[in-house]
Amino acid sequence: MNLLTSPLLTDLYQLTMLQGYVDEDMHEDAVFEFYVRNLPENRGFLMAAGLETLLTFLEGMRFSGEELRYLEGTGRYSKGLLDYLASFRFSGDIYAMPEGTVFFENEPVVRIVAPLPEAQLIETRLINILHFEILIASKAARCVLAAADSAMLVDFGVRRAHGAEAGLLAARATYIAGFAGTSTVLAEALFGIPVFGTMAHSYIEAHEDELEAFLGFARANPDNVTLLIDTYDVHRGAKKTIEASRILAGEGIKVRAIRLDSGDLFTLSKDVRKILDGGGLTAVQIFASGNLDEHIIRELLVRGAPIDGFGVGTKLDTSEDAPYLECAYKLMEYSGKPRFKKSQGKATVPGRKQVFRQFEGQTMVRDILSLEGDVVEGKPLLKKVMNRGKKVAGVTVLKDIASHARMQLTSLPPHLQSLLTSPPYPVTISPALSKLKKDMERQAGV
Amino acid sequence: MNLLTSPLLTDLYQLTMLQGYVDEDMHEDAVFEFYVRNLPENRGFLMAAGLETLLTFLEGMRFSGEELRYLEGTGRYSKGLLDYLASFRFSGDIYAMPEGTVFFENEPVVRIVAPLPEAQLIETRLINILHFEILIASKAARCVLAAADSAMLVDFGVRRAHGAEAGLLAARATYIAGFAGTSTVLAEALFGIPVFGTMAHSYIEAHEDELEAFLGFARANPDNVTLLIDTYDVHRGAKKTIEASRILAGEGIKVRAIRLDSGDLFTLSKDVRKILDGGGLTAVQIFASGNLDEHIIRELLVRGAPIDGFGVGTKLDTSEDAPYLECAYKLMEYSGKPRFKKSQGKATVPGRKQVFRQFEGQTMVRDILSLEGDVVEGKPLLKKVMNRGKKVAGVTVLKDIASHARMQLTSLPPHLQSLLTSPPYPVTISPALSKLKKDMERQAGV
Repeated sequence: MNLLTSPLLTDLYQLTMLQGYVDEDMHEDAVFEFYVRNLPENRGFLMAAGLETLLTFLEGMRFSGEELRYLEGTGRYSKGLLDYLASFRFSGDIYAMPEGTVFFENEPVVRIVAPLPEAQLIETRLINILHFEILIASKAARCVLAAADSAMLVDFGVRRAHGAEAGLLAARATYIAGFAGTSTVLAEALFGIPVFGTMAHSYIEAHEDELEAFLGFARANPDNVTLLIDTYDVHRGAKKTIEASRILAGEGIKVRAIRLDSGDLFTLSKDVRKILDGGGLTAVQIFASGNLDEHIIRELLVRGAPIDGFGVGTKLDTSEDAPYLECAYKLMEYSGKPRFKKSQGKATVPGRKQVFRQFEGQTMVRDILSLEGDVVEGKPLLKKVMNRGKKVAGVTVLKDIASHARMQLTSLPPHLQSLLTSPPYPVTISPALSKLKKDMERQAGV
Repeated sequence: MNLLTSPLLTDLYQLTMLQGYVDEDMHEDAVFEFYVRNLPENRGFLMAAGLETLLTFLEGMRFSGEELRYLEGTGRYSKGLLDYLASFRFSGDIYAMPEGTVFFENEPVVRIVAPLPEAQLIETRLINILHFEILIASKAARCVLAAADSAMLVDFGVRRAHGAEAGLLAARATYIAGFAGTSTVLAEALFGIPVFGTMAHSYIEAHEDELEAFLGFARANPDNVTLLIDTYDVHRGAKKTIEASRILAGEGIKVRAIRLDSGDLFTLSKDVRKILDGGGLTAVQIFASGNLDEHIIRELLVRGAPIDGFGVGTKLDTSEDAPYLECAYKLMEYSGKPRFKKSQGKATVPGRKQVFRQFEGQTMVRDILSLEGDVVEGKPLLKKVMNRGKKVAGVTVLKDIASHARMQLTSLPPHLQSLLTSPPYPVTISPALSKLKKDMERQAGV
């Protein structure tokens, strides 16, 4: 069983519900929407991501012989259900915001239209994929706003990301949001994302002498010489960089950068810049890492720290200040009839919805949440991306998705480009949608 | 390339360092230790987990032809390094605390002894696996302490876990810590962990009527009837449960439980218990879910909420209040010589270390951090688990690991069984280790 493609990476209740749907012959079309109920305290907007990952999963979603034998062996499912699963293919239509699109609370990001058991069965993995990539792209977008084109950003988070897939997909989501690349090698191999990285402290420590380590590393990697200078003492490390640089110059090797990974990055970067410049190494860049987030990046750059690039790791790949989103995947229509739930604090807005975005000049100023067929001023954000189980040609090149995301960030209202909590972006519900909701509630007697 | 087994799920710097080690012929044995620098604010102890996952990964760690071709295609690596990688096998020894063991800051949980390039290359994925399972087992252990045997706990977090592997391994880590099971089907298929789950709100909504949904579900799943009663109105849902129960009794089907997923769980569970008891359903259990964590569980149980089981999801599987640990994997010795780094706030303690735990009666009272060969009173916690790249027979049955964890929790000092911040557990450094550290620092002139 392959963890990434297995339809068994699901909640048990999907299978028990399917047992009901199959027994009761409930195969009419259902409409589900994925959205985020409310933004975390520290987020003024979110960024769509994960769609391509999801569509690829859905196109290949099959039960293998081994999986079917396991299911049969549990004794929990009828022959009818097992037969259904054996021939399962996702055959639905999907409408979605393109990856990289900025969105807000209660706005459908993805809408699924498929026979009820299919739309139900995909729920767990759909949320698992979209939630994570959106979470990380949204956090990364804040780092990109903080760096504001004055420093390069690289994802360093794979080691403390939550498991293998989180490590890999964080590289994807951060690249979409505007990072230059990642340290994760597999992200280059699978997605073509640029990779960065040079040495750890252990490399220095394993050598008898820091200078010897610098020289050994540079000779082994002559095109990629970034020296880590804080293993023992940063100032001494900076001076040894000059020494190494002189020796290496004679061999035709250039030191490109140094890295700082601890201490007061503001003071140290200033000191190191002075030492390097004094040694004639004005072209050698300073790269910083260690416990960074968007706030520290902005603070360092605003105060004028001479840092050319940042490696952002743990706090990015775990979205440390908001490690989850209140997202939901909810039934909006079944068999042509709108549906809703009224659970306290978790009520839904029924019907097939569309988001219309209004602009003033290049700046987004207001979103209207309405029904799909409604005529509303503004640009509709959801587009068809899958037709009867097959991907529709769309933007799938990561570079193009990243360009779209960049445009989105520049069209944010100025107050949302700040990192601070700010008045929420206006999202209003259209009269048509409002009426449907009230009618439904009256009908249900609630 | 298989994400879970690929040696390319690593940081680029592991490969650039290996280029150096291979060029410089640095193949002597290195000793690395994995530990947590400081506990998060909300954790008085941590729980070891992930070891079996790690050992399985290391035993199978190979570069495939496809991976080697990709590496060669980048033009970054020498023929010598590519040859080294093509024949790579992990051949080291590993010492570790058994999974389920409670541990504290700066204590080595896993120690690797292997030729330097091997010990270095495994770093990223080793941290990625151990960090996550420890993170989740430690959070789950707090939920187990909160439930204190008066309610059953089930992991519901797969959908908002960070990616596929996090979803699967969270089921494993929470089961180790004392959960009864998980909703994640694949965890049953792969690990034999008990699975739980019944229906979502969409199931109720897709039916024209709540009662009809209850009956349809129960008939399709006669051995596993838990009804979700908060889709429209909890009190009405409880009454319909009685109605459904009467009809189903005639068909030989028993309702086993109801689930509440929203609102004020204390008041609602009291109300529902009264309604069910009034209808003769005293044996029907109440199961609660929705935004739970250890604090809410303890609060509900202390106040006497009649809840028999909890589904704990998002806040558990993301370790929401502490989504990462300050863990490290550091070089302690190379070629028979202790090594250390002095980076600000990240200095290491050199040498091959062992943790000795002292008890008073059944209660752990003090840990001594010392060198491996040192004679110190107490029970040594690290044991050999891998010999020359092969697993040594040990405890690998999940049930047995869970029993060990249970014993560990009962031997915690009482103040650490509380959920509140408490005085730290005493971990002291032995004189021998202290002396080595000072000697090293003097030698390095720092």
